[in-house]
Amino acid sequence: MKFFEDVQIGETTRFGRYEVTREEILEYARQFDPQPFHLDEEAARQSLFGGLIASGWHTGAMFIRMVCDGMIPGTATAGATGFDDLRWIKPVRPGDVLSVESVVREKIVGRRPDVGTVKVESRISNQRGEVVMSLVSLVIYLRR
Amino acid sequence: MKFFEDVQIGETTRFGRYEVTREEILEYARQFDPQPFHLDEEAARQSLFGGLIASGWHTGAMFIRMVCDGMIPGTATAGATGFDDLRWIKPVRPGDVLSVESVVREKIVGRRPDVGTVKVESRISNQRGEVVMSLVSLVIYLRR
Repeated sequence: MKFFEDVQIGETTRFGRYEVTREEILEYARQFDPQPFHLDEEAARQSLFGGLIASGWHTGAMFIRMVCDGMIPGTATAGATGFDDLRWIKPVRPGDVLSVESVVREKIVGRRPDVGTVKVESRISNQRGEVVMSLVSLVIYLRR
Repeated sequence: MKFFEDVQIGETTRFGRYEVTREEILEYARQFDPQPFHLDEEAARQSLFGGLIASGWHTGAMFIRMVCDGMIPGTATAGATGFDDLRWIKPVRPGDVLSVESVVREKIVGRRPDVGTVKVESRISNQRGEVVMSLVSLVIYLRR
């Protein structure tokens, strides 16, 4: 198990492969983010985005799914307290295949002796290597 | 229609009513965030959180749903470019009822003549008035 003490500043991890489908974009939008450019092909064509795009919160959901499958196993993490500087940089569209590159930027020890916070900067890219989203997560790690 | 020019710094809006169910917490966790404290009652009891809690990304999804239903109608918005300083402050549990208070903090004019960015700080509270999540959204507004 990898604990707080084992995390190294600068550590870089590449992981994940998430195939984005039209069906999932529409399903997520209907449930959580029913804006026209996430929900309706024709309205999306006439919007700033020029075609159907995934909800940014849906892209976040795809990111945490890739983190759960590809980064958390083997680590003594206990969720996160939030994140900073999230940017939706390029649209995510049906047929895109996403992956993640994460770099450890900072380790923070607070009052609690049992946990520490690790600031992890992640960039989510599509199959053309274009970054579509970036963010800095504040991940809770257990201490040994 | 409310355009960029019509938005006032300091404007405060209260809206939304989202009932959090165990079924939806589990369904979201299975699809996007299968960590034990979102997925399994017994594992959750033994975690730092002492019981089942919603995925933070699920709380974000509930937030954008409340925004779509209660804040976007009547405004000339076109999504957001991201957000800053998102914090998960208190756990969100089955039976909680969430609502939102949003305050306009800044208006930013960039190179594009057709849109502007509005920084909106939002606090999501539960039925006891406890803030469970806060964030600052960068909302795209069309200009007249």
